[in-house]
Amino acid sequence: MMADGETARVRACLGGFRWHGLECRPYKEEGDAAFRNISRQILFDEPAQDCELRYFEMGAGGYSSLERHQHTHAVIVLRGRGQCLLGTTVRKVATFDLVTIPAWTWHQFRATDAEPFGFLCMVNRVRDRPQLPSESDLAALKSFPEVAAFLSS
Amino acid sequence: MMADGETARVRACLGGFRWHGLECRPYKEEGDAAFRNISRQILFDEPAQDCELRYFEMGAGGYSSLERHQHTHAVIVLRGRGQCLLGTTVRKVATFDLVTIPAWTWHQFRATDAEPFGFLCMVNRVRDRPQLPSESDLAALKSFPEVAAFLSS
Repeated sequence: MMADGETARVRACLGGFRWHGLECRPYKEEGDAAFRNISRQILFDEPAQDCELRYFEMGAGGYSSLERHQHTHAVIVLRGRGQCLLGTTVRKVATFDLVTIPAWTWHQFRATDAEPFGFLCMVNRVRDRPQLPSESDLAALKSFPEVAAFLSS
Repeated sequence: MMADGETARVRACLGGFRWHGLECRPYKEEGDAAFRNISRQILFDEPAQDCELRYFEMGAGGYSSLERHQHTHAVIVLRGRGQCLLGTTVRKVATFDLVTIPAWTWHQFRATDAEPFGFLCMVNRVRDRPQLPSESDLAALKSFPEVAAFLSS
């Protein structure tokens, strides 16, 4: 039942949203989702913790994949500003804004063309795989002019 | 199985590490733990998420309670710099540094006397109550000169 400082850990930020000893990974390992100019660092992934905390960053003009799933996301922007598709709504978000993405909500993050955009994302350790939009899902989303403009930006 | 933007949520940061519609709460609701000049905002606390994400901030000279518990903490500093007791080790931490606090590890955060110090803390939704140090626990901790200096700072 005892532990001490030997097993605790401080991981220093090196500046520029990189951390000591953490690999800057590809955004996705596999699959055919469309995404651009985005990386992933897993900040916390401990068996004793029921969630993981990841840092995603996209360069200017980058975007995450458009997807939905049963599990939810809790997001806090750490760097820059961008836009977020949430269902059929497009929202501007900036540093330290909070975004909750409920179950089965289509979502995508996009950086502006001017600067990098980065955010923390908390997610359950046990979760389902993302679902990508079918052609008919995309057509339905694009029937909303704001969403169509977002997806073609 | 469908949800849309109506149920999604963007919560704007108002600047100064305050968020729209979020209450800045007392650090602890009860108990006799010693702490000073510290507040708590619960950023994410959704039933669908297996962890909560809270933002704690202490003013200059503030500190959290000295405690330990079975559950673990995943911490990312968002504002300023401070010190962290981890078991029998004292570590300096600064913005965006990451701290993992394992089970049953005595821990306490302290701001410097110069500026506010704030951090995110991810914690399992289902968790045990913190344990406070007994007189003999405190004496054992203070046998380490670095820890004694930290606790009396």
